[in-house]
Amino acid sequence: MIDILAVDKYNNLIKLDSIEGLQQGDYAWYWIDFNQPTDTEVIHLSESLHFHPLAIEDCLQQLQRAKLDYYDAFSFFIMYAIDPKDLSQQEHDFFLHEDYIVTFHKQPSRQVSQVWERLIKMQAKDIDNWGPYRIFYEISDKIVDHYFPLIYELEDQLNEVEDNPNEEAMSVLLDRLFDIRHQLLQLRHTINPMRDLFYRMLNSSHLTGLKERRAYFTDVYDHLLKLSEMVASNREIANDIRDNYLSLNSHQTNEVMKVLTIITSIFAPLTFIAGIYGMNFVNMPELEWEYGYFVVLGVMGVMAVVMYLWFKRKGWF
Amino acid sequence: MIDILAVDKYNNLIKLDSIEGLQQGDYAWYWIDFNQPTDTEVIHLSESLHFHPLAIEDCLQQLQRAKLDYYDAFSFFIMYAIDPKDLSQQEHDFFLHEDYIVTFHKQPSRQVSQVWERLIKMQAKDIDNWGPYRIFYEISDKIVDHYFPLIYELEDQLNEVEDNPNEEAMSVLLDRLFDIRHQLLQLRHTINPMRDLFYRMLNSSHLTGLKERRAYFTDVYDHLLKLSEMVASNREIANDIRDNYLSLNSHQTNEVMKVLTIITSIFAPLTFIAGIYGMNFVNMPELEWEYGYFVVLGVMGVMAVVMYLWFKRKGWF
Amino acid sequence: MIDILAVDKYNNLIKLDSIEGLQQGDYAWYWIDFNQPTDTEVIHLSESLHFHPLAIEDCLQQLQRAKLDYYDAFSFFIMYAIDPKDLSQQEHDFFLHEDYIVTFHKQPSRQVSQVWERLIKMQAKDIDNWGPYRIFYEISDKIVDHYFPLIYELEDQLNEVEDNPNEEAMSVLLDRLFDIRHQLLQLRHTINPMRDLFYRMLNSSHLTGLKERRAYFTDVYDHLLKLSEMVASNREIANDIRDNYLSLNSHQTNEVMKVLTIITSIFAPLTFIAGIYGMNFVNMPELEWEYGYFVVLGVMGVMAVVMYLWFKRKGWF
Amino acid sequence: MIDILAVDKYNNLIKLDSIEGLQQGDYAWYWIDFNQPTDTEVIHLSESLHFHPLAIEDCLQQLQRAKLDYYDAFSFFIMYAIDPKDLSQQEHDFFLHEDYIVTFHKQPSRQVSQVWERLIKMQAKDIDNWGPYRIFYEISDKIVDHYFPLIYELEDQLNEVEDNPNEEAMSVLLDRLFDIRHQLLQLRHTINPMRDLFYRMLNSSHLTGLKERRAYFTDVYDHLLKLSEMVASNREIANDIRDNYLSLNSHQTNEVMKVLTIITSIFAPLTFIAGIYGMNFVNMPELEWEYGYFVVLGVMGVMAVVMYLWFKRKGWF
Amino acid sequence: MIDILAVDKYNNLIKLDSIEGLQQGDYAWYWIDFNQPTDTEVIHLSESLHFHPLAIEDCLQQLQRAKLDYYDAFSFFIMYAIDPKDLSQQEHDFFLHEDYIVTFHKQPSRQVSQVWERLIKMQAKDIDNWGPYRIFYEISDKIVDHYFPLIYELEDQLNEVEDNPNEEAMSVLLDRLFDIRHQLLQLRHTINPMRDLFYRMLNSSHLTGLKERRAYFTDVYDHLLKLSEMVASNREIANDIRDNYLSLNSHQTNEVMKVLTIITSIFAPLTFIAGIYGMNFVNMPELEWEYGYFVVLGVMGVMAVVMYLWFKRKGWF
Ligand SMILES: [Mg+2]
Ligand SMILES: [Mg+2]
Ligand SMILES: [Mg+2]
Ligand SMILES: [Mg+2]
Ligand SMILES: [Mg+2]
Ligand SMILES: [Mg+2]
Ligand SMILES: [Mg+2]
Ligand SMILES: [Mg+2]
Ligand SMILES: [Mg+2]
Ligand SMILES: [Mg+2]
Ligand SMILES: [Mg+2]
Ligand SMILES: [Mg+2]
Ligand SMILES: [Mg+2]
Ligand SMILES: [Mg+2]
Ligand SMILES: [Mg+2]
Ligand SMILES: [Mg+2]
Ligand SMILES: [Mg+2]
Ligand SMILES: [Mg+2]
Ligand SMILES: [Mg+2]
Ligand SMILES: [Mg+2]
Ligand SMILES: [Mg+2]
Ligand SMILES: [Mg+2]
Ligand SMILES: [Mg+2]
Ligand SMILES: [Mg+2]
Ligand SMILES: [Mg+2]
Ligand SMILES: [Mg+2]
Ligand SMILES: [Mg+2]
Ligand SMILES: [Mg+2]
Ligand SMILES: [Mg+2]
Ligand SMILES: [Mg+2]
Ligand SMILES: [Mg+2]
Repeated sequence: MIDILAVDKYNNLIKLDSIEGLQQGDYAWYWIDFNQPTDTEVIHLSESLHFHPLAIEDCLQQLQRAKLDYYDAFSFFIMYAIDPKDLSQQEHDFFLHEDYIVTFHKQPSRQVSQVWERLIKMQAKDIDNWGPYRIFYEISDKIVDHYFPLIYELEDQLNEVEDNPNEEAMSVLLDRLFDIRHQLLQLRHTINPMRDLFYRMLNSSHLTGLKERRAYFTDVYDHLLKLSEMVASNREIANDIRDNYLSLNSHQTNEVMKVLTIITSIFAPLTFIAGIYGMNFVNMPELEWEYGYFVVLGVMGVMAVVMYLWFKRKGWF
Repeated sequence: MIDILAVDKYNNLIKLDSIEGLQQGDYAWYWIDFNQPTDTEVIHLSESLHFHPLAIEDCLQQLQRAKLDYYDAFSFFIMYAIDPKDLSQQEHDFFLHEDYIVTFHKQPSRQVSQVWERLIKMQAKDIDNWGPYRIFYEISDKIVDHYFPLIYELEDQLNEVEDNPNEEAMSVLLDRLFDIRHQLLQLRHTINPMRDLFYRMLNSSHLTGLKERRAYFTDVYDHLLKLSEMVASNREIANDIRDNYLSLNSHQTNEVMKVLTIITSIFAPLTFIAGIYGMNFVNMPELEWEYGYFVVLGVMGVMAVVMYLWFKRKGWF
Repeated sequence: MIDILAVDKYNNLIKLDSIEGLQQGDYAWYWIDFNQPTDTEVIHLSESLHFHPLAIEDCLQQLQRAKLDYYDAFSFFIMYAIDPKDLSQQEHDFFLHEDYIVTFHKQPSRQVSQVWERLIKMQAKDIDNWGPYRIFYEISDKIVDHYFPLIYELEDQLNEVEDNPNEEAMSVLLDRLFDIRHQLLQLRHTINPMRDLFYRMLNSSHLTGLKERRAYFTDVYDHLLKLSEMVASNREIANDIRDNYLSLNSHQTNEVMKVLTIITSIFAPLTFIAGIYGMNFVNMPELEWEYGYFVVLGVMGVMAVVMYLWFKRKGWF
Repeated sequence: MIDILAVDKYNNLIKLDSIEGLQQGDYAWYWIDFNQPTDTEVIHLSESLHFHPLAIEDCLQQLQRAKLDYYDAFSFFIMYAIDPKDLSQQEHDFFLHEDYIVTFHKQPSRQVSQVWERLIKMQAKDIDNWGPYRIFYEISDKIVDHYFPLIYELEDQLNEVEDNPNEEAMSVLLDRLFDIRHQLLQLRHTINPMRDLFYRMLNSSHLTGLKERRAYFTDVYDHLLKLSEMVASNREIANDIRDNYLSLNSHQTNEVMKVLTIITSIFAPLTFIAGIYGMNFVNMPELEWEYGYFVVLGVMGVMAVVMYLWFKRKGWF
Repeated sequence: MIDILAVDKYNNLIKLDSIEGLQQGDYAWYWIDFNQPTDTEVIHLSESLHFHPLAIEDCLQQLQRAKLDYYDAFSFFIMYAIDPKDLSQQEHDFFLHEDYIVTFHKQPSRQVSQVWERLIKMQAKDIDNWGPYRIFYEISDKIVDHYFPLIYELEDQLNEVEDNPNEEAMSVLLDRLFDIRHQLLQLRHTINPMRDLFYRMLNSSHLTGLKERRAYFTDVYDHLLKLSEMVASNREIANDIRDNYLSLNSHQTNEVMKVLTIITSIFAPLTFIAGIYGMNFVNMPELEWEYGYFVVLGVMGVMAVVMYLWFKRKGWF
């Protein structure tokens, strides 16, 4: 679907049906939204709008990395929203010019819809403050604001793994930890290039329309800085938790080994002695002694106590 | 609560009741402190003081990252004190201008109170050295100075974990180590952005009022540099201690295993032999031999000694 | 083999048999391809084309690192394609000038062949858009595009190792993981110097012919940036998977140890008691008791249950 | 103690008793050394010499990080010598000006004493080459030269841990390794800020007196670069040694485990069989067979050999 | 030994016996080689050649870090060849000037000898292309070229450790791996400062004589870049191999543990039961049953099979 909004010099908002309609009127600026375009609609990018073939190629291809290119006639941006369901990337392409903005997205876009809805309900006097750069800011601000709940969700999961309120087995926790780390990596691959993109924007001399709204784009950049730090720090905390589990595990193995060794060390010799006097030799003088049995029991008891004290002194328990 | 101090051109300090009062007098400079402001008081930021909406948004929102923004009329700072009880961040916002400073904090602030108390007790001649930048310096200096005892406390805990004077179990120590590392991470998230903020301040061309007090702000920056190094180095020491525990643990497991294996290796064959002669076959010639029992005891003794020497030669104990 | 294509000022494409033929005609530009050259053919680089000895040395030597050198008369590039069969590097050397391009490769080159085939099928009017820099771009674009399937293949292998659909043994998986990490390292050694090479190209003031096609070379650079990030991130994921396997392994060792210790702890004392009453002393009063056997069986049962409950309470299973 | 040396324009060296004496004479330059000053002597820094309060604060405070501050009238340096006994830091403060140098140290200073002794024994004609910057260079050169033996000592200890000539237990070695790593960390905290300080000095436009002795200060900087590399590389070697110990330990645990498992696997079934024929059932036909005992012995022998060969084929020993 | 070669303006090569001889002739340029100089010969550096004392100090001292210093009259370089026998550093010092080069080395130098031999065999017309900078280039090129075989050798050793063709024990392999990592570290300490030195040279404005041979020095720099990458990547591969060994080791420990636990779990209860019926109580009714023995044998068989199936279902083998 291709949606078109045009604004005339009296700040009236006009909805158009086709790109050709734009040439006929006399408009201050306009916004074309390629919303899940069909293959025939995509052709308008080159045929009607005459964008550079490399920019169109970037629209259609999946490179998965935010970017900014300056062409003679316009600036071209790729940004990525993140789908909260599966953390997949939702590409948003922008062709930005003083007099127009073209947005392009193959999936439905919450962010674009919200801005579109807000704009079409607006009064002519409020529309005076709007334009292609304002629309570009509003959409990118929404894209970035929507990253936060995703990280908060992962932080909560991390806290749950750390505190383990449901007493889950260590193997389950390690598996969840691994998934959290994986998702943090995915977020980083979206957020860090977005951050670098905004840094380039803020330090660019090409984007004249951005200057008067600099404070606004800086605000988005601050959020991206914070997001990027949150991802890095949560990965570090996830590493800490894993190392802690491993430490405790290795410590526990040690404790279990000690129990095993103590048990074995006490009973192996005792069982051996019992085995001795269970032998059937005809000539075993001790067997005939009246108190032989009690002497052996006594010796066994002494051995057990000595062993016990020896391990105790070695600090094994 | 909104507290207001104004200074007239004769260096007299006047306490005002409302922001409106400032327009009526003729003041050299003034300080407005939003101390745990109510929602109605917050409205003064936009209605009476006409600050930029993005700066006000930053005041009200929780971004948790020190920052500095230049607006046309003023500079805007966010700094974070740390609550010694739980290491939580206490946001302090500053609207700074040659002629005024506005401080904003949602919790009570020790740092702001101390400076406020000092100022209101001051003589007119001393007030000559004061002004918005001086107040800004004094508060931020206090915020940073209060970081030190927190790190010293963690260093002490780290030393205690290393020396283990109370002979606590390794699992307890590893747990405390994990908590210390976590807290160092939290401190780093406050301190490093503060350090970067002061670096930007010192290298900024916007902050003219800072130039004459450059040496003072550099002093704060030095402390932040040192703090940031202390955090990094303590994390490294914490890692070293953990790795050391793990090494010792893995070494100890090895030692325990050797004891177990020696015991088993000596008694398993002996017990087996005793078992042989405990069998009830009718035709077992050795059982009839007069000295059969003593021969078997002798063989067992020799086997035990050989085993013992073999493990000794392998260097197992 | 030395293949030569020359273009005259009417955009006619002429195939020549020898380098000497170039001096005789009047050509707008030409392309010489040294395709698996013989030792006698290599001599043309110095004798006929008079290239700088260091550039020729770099052609013949194996340094295995993409590079760019500016000589007075021409620019010299080394790029590396990767053989999909064994990830070995296939060196491509370029001598680039406004009026000519010389390509040199010791193995057959898919990338060069594809561009060559496309060019010789072309109409005179299309050839107008071509020239040495265009040929250079087309070959390098193909070289870089061919990296992607190699990384996708490794990503698929990594997913297979992570999900382990064929339930292979951990030792097999660890071995495959090690190979994947090794191959990622090999790719990085090709891709990162290529990326740095394109960065230098784009920021160079020497390459005037590159300016009008800047957007095209930037497009290749973007791909190299993405590739380099993919390699880094896949190495990180491979590390995560290995750490996860190790964690699970160490956890499993712990579980196995517990089973062993429980079994041993329950049966060692029981077997010892049975051993006691298997001794053949003549005076062992318990043996004569009518219910001695049943009392001992009862005691054994109680001991087993107590042990079981004790381990249960310790949370061992 | 406050020691004062002044040099007049004829290069005569005069020892003065008090700072006040300096105002009375006409001196080319002078050196004041605050050697373990009392609290009353410290007051001279502000009262007589009128240094900036922040510089004086830095003198008295313990920040433990080398630094350089430019004040209007002088440059202020903090450097740290290291006490060879316990690697503690010995702060040296310098107030440096074209016409004077003030040194300040709370402990006795070997480095200052050596330079002082050398200077007071000097002839007037040699004193011509001296001045505040020369004294500053000589002391800092000595401070840095004294770092080397400390690192060489740690390197020797590291080699001893690696070669283990006295066959000490692994736990002792790991403990010593941990201490060495700790001390390397301490050295790094002194050396790296010193290195950064000299880098700043060499690239500063403020220190005009340094220019004519640039080669000398560069020489000190080279030593600091080398020292900083030595520390980093020794920490890396220490890590390598620890990882090697852990690898060998884990390998050894594995070997011990195999011995245990082989012994158990061979004797557990044999002992079980002996136990079978030790049972006292009245009807056990095998017991009556004439060669039953020898058959069972034979079966046991075969089982032991088969087990042995099976473990051998699995490559367990 | 001090060897001297001088070239007059007709490109004749003259061998001189003493440094004093140089003043008497009229030479275009000359080369003095201090080859393992005696203490008396060393004095010529200051007495006859009047080099800066800091440069002479650097010659005589062992700092072990490549460096470049600009003095007024000359440039001073320290480079390190590596002895293939023990990877020890062989210091080469260069005093370089448009009109002379002085080389200084305390050990015999293959690199210097090779260049010397080549030069003295040369015709006058070839000598026209030579001069101090050419000699400096030729020696440093040789020093760097000789690094390659050392790394190739370590790479081969690494491959051998990885493939383990002689089936050596893991402990032996880990030990060799440790040595390889150690040697890579040593190489890095020589190569990286050499690389940084050439980078500084190529970006220096002082070395005018270098400009006309820039391509040659860039070629050496490329080799150093490649070498430095090879060292880094081989250390990474060595880490991968070690981690792989450890993973396999830990996995193997786990497998061994399972065998032990299965054996113990099957035979401990069986042996206990046999022990029960080996007891000598007078009243044990089962012993009198006609088929008691066979029932017990049957129960034991069932227990063994159940245990076996249980471990099988748990996936233990
Ligand atoms: Mg593209
Ligand atoms: Mg796309
Ligand atoms: Mg936002
Ligand atoms: Mg916002
Ligand atoms: Mg991951
Ligand atoms: Mg780690
Ligand atoms: Mg904001
Ligand atoms: Mg806020
Ligand atoms: Mg302070
Ligand atoms: Mg202070
Ligand atoms: Mg943590
Ligand atoms: Mg200070
Ligand atoms: Mg410590
Ligand atoms: Mg080369
Ligand atoms: Mg080549
Ligand atoms: Mg491409
Ligand atoms: Mg393409
Ligand atoms: Mg690898
Ligand atoms: Mg994964
Ligand atoms: Mg101090
Ligand atoms: Mg020195
Ligand atoms: Mg010196
Ligand atoms: Mg340490
Ligand atoms: Mg070593
Ligand atoms: Mg590691
Ligand atoms: Mg030196
Ligand atoms: Mg030397
Ligand atoms: Mg070379
Ligand atoms: Mg060469
Ligand atoms: Mg090493
Ligand atoms: Mg390998």
